[in-house]
Amino acid sequence: MTPVSDPSESPSGDQVNRTLLVIGGAEDKRRRVVVLKRFVRLAGARDAKIVVIPTASSLAEEAFEVYQSVFGRQHVSDISLVNPQTRLAAAEPDLIEAIDNATGIFLTGGNQLKLGQLIVGTPVHEAITRAYHRGAVVAGTSAGASVLSQFMISMGEEGVAPRQRVSQLSAGLGLLPGVILDQHFGQRTRYARLLSLIAASPSLLGVGIDEDTAAEVVNERTMTVVGSGAVYVVDARAAVSDAHEARRDAPLMVSGAVVHSLPYGSCFNLEAAQLTDFTEMHPEVAVVTSPTDVHDTANAAAALRR
Amino acid sequence: MTPVSDPSESPSGDQVNRTLLVIGGAEDKRRRVVVLKRFVRLAGARDAKIVVIPTASSLAEEAFEVYQSVFGRQHVSDISLVNPQTRLAAAEPDLIEAIDNATGIFLTGGNQLKLGQLIVGTPVHEAITRAYHRGAVVAGTSAGASVLSQFMISMGEEGVAPRQRVSQLSAGLGLLPGVILDQHFGQRTRYARLLSLIAASPSLLGVGIDEDTAAEVVNERTMTVVGSGAVYVVDARAAVSDAHEARRDAPLMVSGAVVHSLPYGSCFNLEAAQLTDFTEMHPEVAVVTSPTDVHDTANAAAALRR
Repeated sequence: MTPVSDPSESPSGDQVNRTLLVIGGAEDKRRRVVVLKRFVRLAGARDAKIVVIPTASSLAEEAFEVYQSVFGRQHVSDISLVNPQTRLAAAEPDLIEAIDNATGIFLTGGNQLKLGQLIVGTPVHEAITRAYHRGAVVAGTSAGASVLSQFMISMGEEGVAPRQRVSQLSAGLGLLPGVILDQHFGQRTRYARLLSLIAASPSLLGVGIDEDTAAEVVNERTMTVVGSGAVYVVDARAAVSDAHEARRDAPLMVSGAVVHSLPYGSCFNLEAAQLTDFTEMHPEVAVVTSPTDVHDTANAAAALRR
Repeated sequence: MTPVSDPSESPSGDQVNRTLLVIGGAEDKRRRVVVLKRFVRLAGARDAKIVVIPTASSLAEEAFEVYQSVFGRQHVSDISLVNPQTRLAAAEPDLIEAIDNATGIFLTGGNQLKLGQLIVGTPVHEAITRAYHRGAVVAGTSAGASVLSQFMISMGEEGVAPRQRVSQLSAGLGLLPGVILDQHFGQRTRYARLLSLIAASPSLLGVGIDEDTAAEVVNERTMTVVGSGAVYVVDARAAVSDAHEARRDAPLMVSGAVVHSLPYGSCFNLEAAQLTDFTEMHPEVAVVTSPTDVHDTANAAAALRR
């Protein structure tokens, strides 16, 4: 992991937290809306000024309308579209201004290579970075999630068996250095593709996020899991591997990687690569103690006191 | 892991190794036949006396014929069928005698619960254990692989997300204590079902074997990988988990499990749960050094010597 700095200082001298909401795709938009409600809350609830960037999507206008509708139902009225379709367009002053005024930025799903090629290194990218450092929440789902890291994953097959050169990396927005972010993780069985890249770059931490699930990351360090699935962390820093010499498509040898499967309520330190807490439990995964057990224990305690 | 004893002593006082060949199912029977050739070699090649136990299969006679044909093509002529269809039949003297004379025992695929119910705890089971301790190789594929361990896995869903109570354990033959053996591992994405059981029983090591791949285990300790896929080891002994309290079907929290993805040529110590060697490489996964590199290095070395 890259060393992580302390909270940013705002122009007024206050310390602000930097917050990312990295969503594994297919987040619920109609029922409990847990993940997107969290985004709206982080962006300032009713007072949020949200910028939606649907550039990854081939149906960008429709994607914008979907999120406009979801955020509108959460009583947010200030929702702007930023949709550059060329790198030149990603320098237009009105787009930059919208981002500079935003309290929340939302990158939709689609093609992450398109997203990377159109915005990484442009003034839109710079504006997103500025917004992140002044405390605006930056969220991405699916392709929009992968592009948040410095090393962006793409391609690759489904499966659990890591193989040589089935996947590739390109440059992302770099808001979360030291991490490779993958999405639709359990649903598309992306364990192998993440592990094969981490084996080749063991200094990076692999973070795979299930659908309808988010990793909420504060100051690039503290990660909390929100939603109905889990977040997987793969840590190959102490592993040995033949990734430097294995033949193309050969099964990779990776020995000693440490894995973490983290559902709702898990809190994880990305610097130390360690679970720090598992108390903020979701009602649906909370401890179910059978009434009989409780009754028995209460009776026994009462009997002891007598 | 259960403490492992040293090699058995034969009646003549010689030390004999105990050998298991645990096959992940769908092993190649027509082309390179790597795994089954290895079984025949371990059983004594041409002089092998092989017992095939196709009891797990609903097409037991056909399964026997298939293996009879494969082993016949490897010049083995002494091949017997042991196919008890009731627990009472699993005590028949002629079956016990065949096993007592065998140098290799092969358990086919099929339904592992049927196999467990019909032979575990019977005289056939006792004879298999005797054979194993006097040095006969015991092999099982698919269902026949799972039944070799003490805790036999069954049921469960495909996927990478471990969930509460998706899988279950029953009693196996116990030749490999301290381990849960799963098969068709990558092909059927059994990562989640293995991890969920290991999370609940962290003293056991999870070993998942790909199709057309075998774990060759000597004296319950030294495991070597043979075949075209990989063997996965999941070690949750140092992990933390909520498996003791998670709600049925909830995603499990498992943090700090150590994983190993081990292709052909990997050698692993099951007691220490550590990779010990990765030199016995298969030609297909061997290091490919480009001719140019070799040429350059040779030229540079020659130049230095001058």
